[in-house]
Amino acid sequence: MEYLYYLYPIRTYLIVAGTLEKPNPMTADWVVPLSRKPPLLGVAIAHTRYTKKLIDEQKDFVVAVPTMELLKDVWIAGTVSGAKKDKKELMSVTFIESKSVKAPSIKECAANLECRVVQEVVTGDHTFFVGEIVNVSYGDAFPNKPDIANFRFILHVGGKDFTDTGNETIQP
Amino acid sequence: MEYLYYLYPIRTYLIVAGTLEKPNPMTADWVVPLSRKPPLLGVAIAHTRYTKKLIDEQKDFVVAVPTMELLKDVWIAGTVSGAKKDKKELMSVTFIESKSVKAPSIKECAANLECRVVQEVVTGDHTFFVGEIVNVSYGDAFPNKPDIANFRFILHVGGKDFTDTGNETIQP
Repeated sequence: MEYLYYLYPIRTYLIVAGTLEKPNPMTADWVVPLSRKPPLLGVAIAHTRYTKKLIDEQKDFVVAVPTMELLKDVWIAGTVSGAKKDKKELMSVTFIESKSVKAPSIKECAANLECRVVQEVVTGDHTFFVGEIVNVSYGDAFPNKPDIANFRFILHVGGKDFTDTGNETIQP
Repeated sequence: MEYLYYLYPIRTYLIVAGTLEKPNPMTADWVVPLSRKPPLLGVAIAHTRYTKKLIDEQKDFVVAVPTMELLKDVWIAGTVSGAKKDKKELMSVTFIESKSVKAPSIKECAANLECRVVQEVVTGDHTFFVGEIVNVSYGDAFPNKPDIANFRFILHVGGKDFTDTGNETIQP
């Protein structure tokens, strides 16, 4: 088995690049918090991806947080290339204007983290984009910490297999 | 709420630095796959952490994958500083020799990914270590993909709250 799968299952997000007129969402498992002050996150995107080209040009993107209800859309965003097809036409989600970046947000997602690229690092066959989170819009999945009792966040197990987060809070 | 918590809950791992004689395990949520060829992963560690100093010196570390049975140990590793106390004495796990790096592995973990540091990037208040995975030892949680039906992997919700991965495979 590939070494990286020992880290799975891991959370799955949508990276939205492009503009409100021409949005391009991509499914990404490789997303990570990086810093509290300033608030930074990182996302690793294969060099060959259309999303990589779009972020290079526009220097911003949105990390949208899907829940299990959006799994079919997540699968489409992860398997269709935006260079060949308009994913917006295939997906059922609504793209809306972000507050602080050109890349749009997704209305049906539990949260949208608006990021400006502050650093770009080549890591093997992927480009690691470091984004400063400049704004967030969200629904009600995060009253103060993630509401796991009522929201089913998506984890990627591998291939076409997914699972959800537990709904029970466990303390050590 | 802090911006980064919109990415939560996320998986929790143990980063083992140091040697078999003087191991120092630290709990880390901020771990991410980065590349398939070569196999790379990244981990963000606060500049002030004892583990950061140890990895700087030795240039290797192990990412150990705990399951829910080890939650108490995970909590100790995440809240006690190895600069002040010997965590090995406080935790119930067994440190064992790794195959290819000086940093030891943990016998009770579902997998141990042995990493050599190939790059180090400052990202805000954390240092992001890029490690090449040079070897893996593991138990039986990964027959070919993660066995979510039988292993309960740990997710950090925030603060002292954790949850587990779902045990049902869902397909889009």
